[in-house]
Amino acid sequence: MEAILKAQELELAQLVGEKMYESDAAAHMLGIKLLEIKPGYAKMQMSIRPDMLNGHGILHGGMTFSLADTTFAYACNSKNHKTVALACAITYIAPGCEGDVLTAIAREQAHAGKSGVYDITITNQNDEILALFRGNSHRTSHAVV
Amino acid sequence: MEAILKAQELELAQLVGEKMYESDAAAHMLGIKLLEIKPGYAKMQMSIRPDMLNGHGILHGGMTFSLADTTFAYACNSKNHKTVALACAITYIAPGCEGDVLTAIAREQAHAGKSGVYDITITNQNDEILALFRGNSHRTSHAVV
Amino acid sequence: MEAILKAQELELAQLVGEKMYESDAAAHMLGIKLLEIKPGYAKMQMSIRPDMLNGHGILHGGMTFSLADTTFAYACNSKNHKTVALACAITYIAPGCEGDVLTAIAREQAHAGKSGVYDITITNQNDEILALFRGNSHRTSHAVV
Amino acid sequence: MEAILKAQELELAQLVGEKMYESDAAAHMLGIKLLEIKPGYAKMQMSIRPDMLNGHGILHGGMTFSLADTTFAYACNSKNHKTVALACAITYIAPGCEGDVLTAIAREQAHAGKSGVYDITITNQNDEILALFRGNSHRTSHAVV
Repeated sequence: MEAILKAQELELAQLVGEKMYESDAAAHMLGIKLLEIKPGYAKMQMSIRPDMLNGHGILHGGMTFSLADTTFAYACNSKNHKTVALACAITYIAPGCEGDVLTAIAREQAHAGKSGVYDITITNQNDEILALFRGNSHRTSHAVV
Repeated sequence: MEAILKAQELELAQLVGEKMYESDAAAHMLGIKLLEIKPGYAKMQMSIRPDMLNGHGILHGGMTFSLADTTFAYACNSKNHKTVALACAITYIAPGCEGDVLTAIAREQAHAGKSGVYDITITNQNDEILALFRGNSHRTSHAVV
Repeated sequence: MEAILKAQELELAQLVGEKMYESDAAAHMLGIKLLEIKPGYAKMQMSIRPDMLNGHGILHGGMTFSLADTTFAYACNSKNHKTVALACAITYIAPGCEGDVLTAIAREQAHAGKSGVYDITITNQNDEILALFRGNSHRTSHAVV
Repeated sequence: MEAILKAQELELAQLVGEKMYESDAAAHMLGIKLLEIKPGYAKMQMSIRPDMLNGHGILHGGMTFSLADTTFAYACNSKNHKTVALACAITYIAPGCEGDVLTAIAREQAHAGKSGVYDITITNQNDEILALFRGNSHRTSHAVV
């Protein structure tokens, strides 16, 4: 019985992910791919292109944040409650370089009422942590799909 | 005497701004323009394009952050000390819509030793605040130009 | 007419401040005084006692935060809407020392719907900034008084 | 060989913890106890006293923060490099009540050069999460003991 419920929640999360991704113009512009989505969880990938570098020749902080923020959005909408970001914070650990393939994993850490907290870790192809992101979310009363 | 010093600092800030902007690929990719730079201050602009929207049809949070983070970078490098972002936080106040013209203003709030704090306000063409950003910076011992 | 309205709002803010302060045990424990309260604004003071120092002999970060957080609470409740803190961030600029007299000023920066953002600056008796605090608030549907 | 090294690191962490705790006046004032310390890790406890409540009759946010911040300090100094907090953020999940016994656990999440990131979770006696805290630290070139 619980297994059926879990399978249904997983299916719903995947449906939400597909639906959001379809019309997510910014994610497409940045070449971000949705690798996996489960209730309270998402995994996405982005390769660092030359046009994502800043004036110091390393990955622009806004690009790192965009990957994390996107993954956060998919994770916090994954239960089909339309959810928005209230406030987010990022700490930069190591620079990203052209050609690096970045993976972002978002996990729900806590929730209470309509508020939620998600942590997103960004690593490169060598499993080195580039940045840690924490997002505070607010659930609306609408459904995503 | 002080007036000459101030004029030199302003000139240096402008030189740093031009130099950084020249090779700032991500800023160009997003159509971000540098409107003004002074010691500890920068003002930049970005118009919301269709490819900057997220799956909910509003400005992707990563794009808002990218504009703020870029403006932060120019302000905190404006005294010609190469300076990097350590940790940044953003609070979203109102959604951005396609066609909106966003202005970001960054101002130094405090500094001590190699650490600095900058506040960036993002407004739209109607002077409505869309987001507030706070950046913590770390000054290196290198020069920008 | 507008002057009368303003005077009423100010009076209400002061009433809210008195009422909150009366039962604010933690503020009393820390010797925090309410100097001024207006709609969207509060000013409070705390002297650094020997029992507020940490293992390095300087003001414990939790004490700095407590002063800022208290001032934030009075400012964001000042319009008589019971309001709670969702997420707060502090950057430490300079250490506080025994005997220092700290002043915290909280100002509303933006609000939208039930969300608000307040900035709190903490200075010592020499007007040196010790810390910058930013608080994200959530307004409930209850009144304070 | 590695086991000996690990035992030495653990012993050093415990020595640092004892030494810091001895002179940590604020921790004593708040009744905070050090339960465990290991390299990059600390666990502390605090009981909610009547004088820790705010004007709404629940645990003052500054007290929650103080427990988290203290645990952060012990974890980030545990390798005997004197380390200071640069910027910290807290999200409040659920209120604390008089008599609750709070446990804070701090874990190192990442470090690079002199910078580190620590996550602290605060739970009550029923294992409910009250708050999530993230601290950004800066290592100095001094030793603690």
